[in-house]
Amino acid sequence: MRQSSFFTKTLKTISSEEQSKNAQLLLRGGFIYKNSAGVYSYLPLGWRVIQNISQIIREEMNAIGGIEMLMPALVEKRYLDITQRSAVDIGFSVAGHDSGRAPYILGWTHEEVITEIATRYIQSWRDLPVAAYQIQTKFRNEPRAKNGLLRGREFIMKDLYSFHQSKEDLLVYYETVRRAYEAVFARVGLKAYYTVATGGDFTMSTTNEFQVLADAGEDTIYYKEGSSIAFNQEVVEESGEYDVSDFQKGSAIEVGNIFPLGTKYSDAFDLRWQDENGKKQKVYMGSYGIGVSRVMAALVEVSSDERGIIWNPAVAPFLVHIIPISDDSAVIREAEKVYEALKGEGYAVLLDDRNARPGEKFADSDLIGIPFRITVSQKTMEQNGYGLKLRDKDEEQIYSLPDLKQHIALQR
Amino acid sequence: MRQSSFFTKTLKTISSEEQSKNAQLLLRGGFIYKNSAGVYSYLPLGWRVIQNISQIIREEMNAIGGIEMLMPALVEKRYLDITQRSAVDIGFSVAGHDSGRAPYILGWTHEEVITEIATRYIQSWRDLPVAAYQIQTKFRNEPRAKNGLLRGREFIMKDLYSFHQSKEDLLVYYETVRRAYEAVFARVGLKAYYTVATGGDFTMSTTNEFQVLADAGEDTIYYKEGSSIAFNQEVVEESGEYDVSDFQKGSAIEVGNIFPLGTKYSDAFDLRWQDENGKKQKVYMGSYGIGVSRVMAALVEVSSDERGIIWNPAVAPFLVHIIPISDDSAVIREAEKVYEALKGEGYAVLLDDRNARPGEKFADSDLIGIPFRITVSQKTMEQNGYGLKLRDKDEEQIYSLPDLKQHIALQR
Repeated sequence: MRQSSFFTKTLKTISSEEQSKNAQLLLRGGFIYKNSAGVYSYLPLGWRVIQNISQIIREEMNAIGGIEMLMPALVEKRYLDITQRSAVDIGFSVAGHDSGRAPYILGWTHEEVITEIATRYIQSWRDLPVAAYQIQTKFRNEPRAKNGLLRGREFIMKDLYSFHQSKEDLLVYYETVRRAYEAVFARVGLKAYYTVATGGDFTMSTTNEFQVLADAGEDTIYYKEGSSIAFNQEVVEESGEYDVSDFQKGSAIEVGNIFPLGTKYSDAFDLRWQDENGKKQKVYMGSYGIGVSRVMAALVEVSSDERGIIWNPAVAPFLVHIIPISDDSAVIREAEKVYEALKGEGYAVLLDDRNARPGEKFADSDLIGIPFRITVSQKTMEQNGYGLKLRDKDEEQIYSLPDLKQHIALQR
Repeated sequence: MRQSSFFTKTLKTISSEEQSKNAQLLLRGGFIYKNSAGVYSYLPLGWRVIQNISQIIREEMNAIGGIEMLMPALVEKRYLDITQRSAVDIGFSVAGHDSGRAPYILGWTHEEVITEIATRYIQSWRDLPVAAYQIQTKFRNEPRAKNGLLRGREFIMKDLYSFHQSKEDLLVYYETVRRAYEAVFARVGLKAYYTVATGGDFTMSTTNEFQVLADAGEDTIYYKEGSSIAFNQEVVEESGEYDVSDFQKGSAIEVGNIFPLGTKYSDAFDLRWQDENGKKQKVYMGSYGIGVSRVMAALVEVSSDERGIIWNPAVAPFLVHIIPISDDSAVIREAEKVYEALKGEGYAVLLDDRNARPGEKFADSDLIGIPFRITVSQKTMEQNGYGLKLRDKDEEQIYSLPDLKQHIALQR
């Protein structure tokens, strides 16, 4: 894509009310626009990152048998009445102009909806196990929206729900989802701790979360290098069961959670399966969330420097940024040449074809954080090559086009 | 995908309150689930169709320079107050539990939001023209939700907005969008008439719509074979300017609309561009919608028979349906072989691996409407081939694997 035809620009300054690193950098870089407190638009750069994160999640969910679908945002109040969750105060209620009634809650989670749907399709042992997920905008009436995309009133989530014949089968799948989540976080470039947490609104037992250490995090966890498990502060304090004396304590961001729901929702909706002998049996459920927009924010919180964001190549809005550092026509032609060559390799390439000073182009490139920066100048042309600098490194080296391609292929 | 691991099944009967063909067939086939009046879930089959339609739209929007982004569903009331649209009665208002206030309207259109965003990024002649779009869930508080996905309270739309230096530039782009829309409707398999329509809430002048003739349509148009333009009944009656004496009259479905907004929204938000002489100038806007979920419904309305849906290959949930018509292990192995071979070609293939009678498998295949049906049986194996039947044809023919691949490649 050509930068001159882009909708957004970088901003020198932003409103002082945004204090979190993710909001500041994403606003300055032109990734997001703040429409209201806790309500953001994803501008083209930000939407590309969201789509890249979503695609990684989609691939990992499909790999464990998850089937994609989409449930409504308008969740009729009757759904949440059944499980006594209609009064949970994070639910926005929706009224029509003509009625004053509030028949809907804006979906903040979909256990009730998926369970009702499942009653239509799950009848016998043949129909289990099954797992379905969606990537969807969700809503929470947060009293105080804060920390940019970390705690918004409208945000993007992936939620997966699974249905099983037995608790044992649920627990096996639960571990499968845990491994899929580990793959997701590794691929997007987050070091996430698997923690034991309290149950909350979803389940009475303990649950598990994936937490990323970051100053902006709202949670506190006890973690230890080399330990496959960490603990949320609340569960340690409430249960008194966990010895965390040799663990470190740290302010973390919850990026995912997995809940062994058991039969709470299936019982409420009378979802049953009939075994080979015709006997009705309980259905065991799990639910599993990843905050897609929160993952974007967490990535910015943990990977930036004083010049801007440092994106992991797997989720970066563009993989390569080409910057001609002269408006000489031979330089422009050469930049166009490498632009077409790298697009031809299937890479997402941004060409800075703006009429701007090199210093401004470099500053913008660092701010938006594209992993590979290629400069084209009289100097690089004299050496029959292009300057390649990685966003997280300082040195630039000159490479011929074949070597350049090889370097990008190896390091992406 | 294996049918045995699918979340949904076909239904023999559905609630009698659903009278439209699209709702009946999509519910029976397991494409959608009705959660509330006018509120549906897209089940895995339906979601695949929505994704296919969305991808075609995305490709055509990108081809005319549209840049994808995502705006919020929670549209603060202040946006619509500026253009006096906050009282339009199709807007759902949203209140928090703790306030009783209704600070948001659920987005039913986004002219105001995109225009405010544009004021941040459009300042000079260098920043124009620009066009941005989103594919998003939208909400309308329809007094009477009806006709299945044709008039829902929650639905999926693509909306594109363009910004220009002059009315002339807007009108040139308007024609570009018209051609892109024609490409979209041709690719998804809809014959859409380009009509002149009245302005409605968006603009004072006439606008243009894309209308598909169908019994279930709520609009009436005057159309003529070979004419590049048709007319909505209202505009003919209200203006008295159009001679439609040799046109035919028909009950049509609006699947898209394009609006020359002019400066209504840019004036309201004081969006201006500075010309080369430093003088502030007006910004001319257009907005352009396609009802994504409505396109799915329209396709069903115009393409089905007494046995079920007939999907166009470009949007079908799967391209090929493989049906072993015996549970003999050699037949199953052969079905698995052609399943893997066609997946290897990159096709979306559904394998009916259920333990069911051939008649039931054929009836389900016809109902869900997959374009290519391949049968594997002792008979086809004796002829060293596979039975191939197109959904919209009656005869089945036996082909070897290479011939089968060629036929599918040619006719998809």
